[in-house]
Amino acid sequence: MSEPLRIAIAGLGTVGAGVFQLLAKNGALIARRGGRPLEVVAVAARDRKKDRGVDLAKVAWFDDAAKMAAEADCEVVVELIGGAEGMARRVCETALAKGRHVVTANKALLAHHGTALAASAEAKGLTIAYEAAVAGGIPIIKSIREGLAANRLSRVYGILNGTCNYILTQMRKTGRAFGDVLADAQKLGYAEADPSFDVDGVDAAHKLAILAGVAFGTKIDFAAVHVEGIRRVGAQDIQFARELGFRIKLLGIAELGEGGLMQRVHPCMVPLETPIAHVEDVYNAVVAEGDFVGRVVAEGRGAGAGPTASAVVADIVDIAHGRRPMTFQLPAGELATPKALGIDARRGGYYIRLDVIDRPGVIADVTAALRDEAVSLASMLQRGRAPDERVPVVLVTHDTQEAAMRRALDRIARLGAVLEAPVVIRIESL
Amino acid sequence: MSEPLRIAIAGLGTVGAGVFQLLAKNGALIARRGGRPLEVVAVAARDRKKDRGVDLAKVAWFDDAAKMAAEADCEVVVELIGGAEGMARRVCETALAKGRHVVTANKALLAHHGTALAASAEAKGLTIAYEAAVAGGIPIIKSIREGLAANRLSRVYGILNGTCNYILTQMRKTGRAFGDVLADAQKLGYAEADPSFDVDGVDAAHKLAILAGVAFGTKIDFAAVHVEGIRRVGAQDIQFARELGFRIKLLGIAELGEGGLMQRVHPCMVPLETPIAHVEDVYNAVVAEGDFVGRVVAEGRGAGAGPTASAVVADIVDIAHGRRPMTFQLPAGELATPKALGIDARRGGYYIRLDVIDRPGVIADVTAALRDEAVSLASMLQRGRAPDERVPVVLVTHDTQEAAMRRALDRIARLGAVLEAPVVIRIESL
Repeated sequence: MSEPLRIAIAGLGTVGAGVFQLLAKNGALIARRGGRPLEVVAVAARDRKKDRGVDLAKVAWFDDAAKMAAEADCEVVVELIGGAEGMARRVCETALAKGRHVVTANKALLAHHGTALAASAEAKGLTIAYEAAVAGGIPIIKSIREGLAANRLSRVYGILNGTCNYILTQMRKTGRAFGDVLADAQKLGYAEADPSFDVDGVDAAHKLAILAGVAFGTKIDFAAVHVEGIRRVGAQDIQFARELGFRIKLLGIAELGEGGLMQRVHPCMVPLETPIAHVEDVYNAVVAEGDFVGRVVAEGRGAGAGPTASAVVADIVDIAHGRRPMTFQLPAGELATPKALGIDARRGGYYIRLDVIDRPGVIADVTAALRDEAVSLASMLQRGRAPDERVPVVLVTHDTQEAAMRRALDRIARLGAVLEAPVVIRIESL
Repeated sequence: MSEPLRIAIAGLGTVGAGVFQLLAKNGALIARRGGRPLEVVAVAARDRKKDRGVDLAKVAWFDDAAKMAAEADCEVVVELIGGAEGMARRVCETALAKGRHVVTANKALLAHHGTALAASAEAKGLTIAYEAAVAGGIPIIKSIREGLAANRLSRVYGILNGTCNYILTQMRKTGRAFGDVLADAQKLGYAEADPSFDVDGVDAAHKLAILAGVAFGTKIDFAAVHVEGIRRVGAQDIQFARELGFRIKLLGIAELGEGGLMQRVHPCMVPLETPIAHVEDVYNAVVAEGDFVGRVVAEGRGAGAGPTASAVVADIVDIAHGRRPMTFQLPAGELATPKALGIDARRGGYYIRLDVIDRPGVIADVTAALRDEAVSLASMLQRGRAPDERVPVVLVTHDTQEAAMRRALDRIARLGAVLEAPVVIRIESL
């Protein structure tokens, strides 16, 4: 058996400890599979004394992760600090500058600096691997980059945030409101104390930008992702979705067409017949559509110590085997920069919920606004009647252009009888 | 860019022609991704004159595929002939003997000779790659072997035959009988003129044996697979399944536990909440369960020119990149040979449909037989009443051992009022 692959780990939170536990339990098997043992030789974290259930006796300790990335006697630096800037970025840049491979679970870093990091790595013949950054334990980066390497992909989309999927699933199962379910999710550890990163769609957008890069061979363009979260999805929307034969999911969708690349994260109505409608709770799923393979779906746990450690170690095994894939399908210098299409260019159906005062003429005004923008109505639902009181009215449109729908909606929102900003959920036929 | 990778293709049926079409359409992109063009330099098939919509002008033609495998000026031989013996086997063995890598879509060959072929390939530092042999376009072999390389897998299962899944889906959607739906599937080209390989479960069993080998690092043991097909699934079973909250799927299931390895292919009742319950029509899906990653599901098209060509070319791209994975996770000489557990050792619930004469005492006799074998009944359904006529009676058991259930069933089958051999469908909680 060959020499061990020497690894340094920056950051010893849940995932870092998970990597230790995984190697302790499965290290011997992995060595047989890889023909080479994996050995953690150095660790950097803030508090040396904290008990993480991990044996650090044989490991060099660094208080400064960047110093470790520069000086540890290793071939691979695993970055598990997180965040787009600061120490995480410094660790990765230092490791590459010093000739070490990098394995990271850091989606924010890659969404913001992925193309530059890829270029640095490739210039030195090094790998920057990031399977754990997207959809946790699902080996989707490998599947897209290698498994579907023969295909031209036209679309990639998925449920990329487990917290949101958990909240939406619980809202559906219990009929409770977003805020209540979020509070519970926080208690259970499925949502952070400050949940905005997850529930406002930013985390999913980071992952989507990375997925688009590797699926299409394009420069990562996080700034161009249209992002909406799930805060405005109401219990009644969940109920209406049920009646209409849909489930509400927060999807990240990237489509590359003649006109350019559209990337968007927002709540969607998806038909019950489509596979991801049934991906529930904290599970993630990614769908890739290729010209020869057709539709491929991968589902699994998107977060947590075990699944993330599984992805991190798979990347390390690739390095141990000498497998050196391109970071994003093509050499960093050859990545395309397609035109970024804004959400205005989106075409599809819309679910619109209005809160209106139930009085004569309201519906006529609403439908006139739609007609004037050539937005064609597929159906309308009004729940009960309550003269001069507030009632929800749901409109479902045929396929139309987002820009036209927005213009109609601006006019509708200004109607005196419309009480709150309309809730708009895009219908994705998928 | 490096020298082209030179490829010889044995067999020019739908898949072979698909590989040509794929390389014609996406070859330039694949070359950029791989840093190396792929070039088909030789082809062997039976009839040179047949029009396959493929340009063979620049390709050396061989009437004898084994001669091509020995003599063509190539690095990779792609075997697309099919069958466990004869020419397909000769092509693969010859190619390896002559120092060429092999890419094959041939599940029968691998199920019967996979371990020996792996040993031959590894002895020469060559690859035998077979992504296309299991679940068509789904990159499940790569996902298990590399993407989940950090895990110890305990179970792998899936919908491995598109023909059966199509038939069961149509039976459910239309309420029609197996024979009718099969006849339609044959007309549509979803089933062969002789459908037995598919509907009797043999094709799924080949794939399961291969999956078990790569998931567990065990020698392929096709002979130990318990195989049942879907011929006895009746329209009324589909209807009962619906009432009980199940879908009927033909699954291949491989489980490695303390006691040994159980491999089985048979119709299953799966709960609606489980992901593969929603995998319909010709789609395949594979579920792998690992100790760190948890449950990972992959779904896609299991057959057809496009998906199969996608998998074949992905394997070729791996070779072009110099990626040389072990054939079945561990070196062929280190593959384990766990004890083969027969179906008698299976524990779980059972759905049993009896065709009985509706007369007093029948149910008492049936339930007495179950009680005597300590098989505990969860529910019983009798559809309508028809004194002294034939009625279906459905029994659902709690978890029990297959052997006990079989003993009870033998006694039940001998009761005078029981008219036909009982239909038994195992309930998989998954």
